[in-house]
Amino acid sequence: MKKRKELSAQDYVTGVLAGDRVVLARAITLLESESRDHHALAHEVLKQIRPYADNSIRICITGTPGVGKSTFLETLGSQLCQQGYKIAVLAIDPSSTITQGSILGDKTRMQKLSNEENCFIRPSSSRGELGGVHCKTREVIQLCEAAGYNVIFIETVGVGQSESAARNLCDFLLLLVPPLLGDYLQTIKRGVVELIDGVFINRAENENAERAKQMEEEFKQILQHRFAVTQGWTPEVYRGSALTGSGIDHLWASIERFKCITQKSGFFKLRRKNQLIDWLHELIVRKIRLDFFEHPHVKELLPKMKKNILHNNVSVEEAVQDLLNAYRMEKRNAYKD
Amino acid sequence: MKKRKELSAQDYVTGVLAGDRVVLARAITLLESESRDHHALAHEVLKQIRPYADNSIRICITGTPGVGKSTFLETLGSQLCQQGYKIAVLAIDPSSTITQGSILGDKTRMQKLSNEENCFIRPSSSRGELGGVHCKTREVIQLCEAAGYNVIFIETVGVGQSESAARNLCDFLLLLVPPLLGDYLQTIKRGVVELIDGVFINRAENENAERAKQMEEEFKQILQHRFAVTQGWTPEVYRGSALTGSGIDHLWASIERFKCITQKSGFFKLRRKNQLIDWLHELIVRKIRLDFFEHPHVKELLPKMKKNILHNNVSVEEAVQDLLNAYRMEKRNAYKD
Repeated sequence: MKKRKELSAQDYVTGVLAGDRVVLARAITLLESESRDHHALAHEVLKQIRPYADNSIRICITGTPGVGKSTFLETLGSQLCQQGYKIAVLAIDPSSTITQGSILGDKTRMQKLSNEENCFIRPSSSRGELGGVHCKTREVIQLCEAAGYNVIFIETVGVGQSESAARNLCDFLLLLVPPLLGDYLQTIKRGVVELIDGVFINRAENENAERAKQMEEEFKQILQHRFAVTQGWTPEVYRGSALTGSGIDHLWASIERFKCITQKSGFFKLRRKNQLIDWLHELIVRKIRLDFFEHPHVKELLPKMKKNILHNNVSVEEAVQDLLNAYRMEKRNAYKD
Repeated sequence: MKKRKELSAQDYVTGVLAGDRVVLARAITLLESESRDHHALAHEVLKQIRPYADNSIRICITGTPGVGKSTFLETLGSQLCQQGYKIAVLAIDPSSTITQGSILGDKTRMQKLSNEENCFIRPSSSRGELGGVHCKTREVIQLCEAAGYNVIFIETVGVGQSESAARNLCDFLLLLVPPLLGDYLQTIKRGVVELIDGVFINRAENENAERAKQMEEEFKQILQHRFAVTQGWTPEVYRGSALTGSGIDHLWASIERFKCITQKSGFFKLRRKNQLIDWLHELIVRKIRLDFFEHPHVKELLPKMKKNILHNNVSVEEAVQDLLNAYRMEKRNAYKD
């Protein structure tokens, strides 16, 4: 097998800015690489492309597996491509940590869309990070934006904390639901409803039409008592079918109106700024946690301390103090060298 | 005003183990003190009483304000005192950070109970910690247990993250709800239902009886689809009135059965062990976060970094790196002295 030519930072930047899909894909791989050698290069690339990012609308699509997210993206995405938009679909597949087969899977799932000239599809394993949102997704979005993609879809499966992580990545959060009544509504996690800008009731065709209408009413009632997550925007309920395409135009018109309203009010920009600051805090806490728990002295002492706690030989507070001391002592010795 | 005699560690330990309520109250005050001088003494006391703690059932009562938690505790607590149990009620009042008036408030709210010989009531300000659970509650529980209290009630208002914190403090988590249908059920946070061992529908008397029955059915349906939080126990729905006392006996019999089942299976002990380990992790993360964000160099640099991020002069990852460097550099200098 022929080895691919190594790219320089400049190669990456030029390629991405020119919208070269092969270079874009390689840049994302570089970014997601866990090799330390790649970090500095990825850093340099990101630094140079950053001024060209940001010019897009970022839309997260969430919903339980099987609700039809891929079909929905296939239909909406294809329409947008026809209209001249450049679409990036970042599919985050929590299961791919196990199957490793998500790339083939996604290309197959969105066959029509993946053949579009103006579309770029990229699945990512979530590696258990933040319940389904890859820790590099934020940077991948920037790379796509720099490559000229102006509608970014982030597809995520609603597990655990992923919705709040997704909320913090996007401008518009859309929940996809099947046309099921009562019991189904009970299973939607409360927290999700408080985060969304809209909900799309999918498969509202034929025999489901009546139930979908009822569900629309139920959702409207639920949503009207919520505190809106986006200033100046009341979450909307849409109804349609990803398969037949009904309701999709209406939804997109609504998202465009959303963008217009929030950009005019300044909330669009403000939210993105706040997201960056939240991200800063999150990364810091993640790093200092890792620094502590991966520390050799801590790793050695922690199991012993747990044992002591369980045998009542030491209090939790004493154990914390001992662990912190061990961590700091080691630091001191390291600095002495 | 006459100054109270200072107590030694031995005085505290002897007093607490003898069940002296005045000494117990003073030991809790010592524990909750923010003065550094008191920390070592509190530590010593805790260390000595720890072998005598643990012999109780810990029950958290949660529910929105006004649902009747105090009346419920007054009724159930008084009954248990009559039966020879020793009851401790730790009322955690998030509002008391502002009003500072919770002690009087609680004594008034539970007048009958506070006159019982076998009852000890202690309100705590939550000081914004963990959404309504005081960070010392765990140790206060141990002091009460060492003083011979064998039923520990922790009353908490359902705000924010408090339920998961409460879950981690207790053996049995009880949710109190008013007899309201439909809309009310929607407002119960999804996450709470997944954590409880039982729900008590309060005020089920007279004109509410019919609605309470319906609500019982609804709750049973919701609960039967949940993954049980306690191994070997299916969450139960109770119905009654704290005011008239109806349904209270039935509830208590159920809690006794719960204790019996989980102790027999070993889950009771296992959960308490896991709670300690979770607590260890939580305290560590809290301390290292504080250490970082309260660090003078970080405090000085952080606002500048945020500004730089917002002006696109630096990436979030670079800012994190700079902040970590500043933090570590200062550490290094400190150690050099």
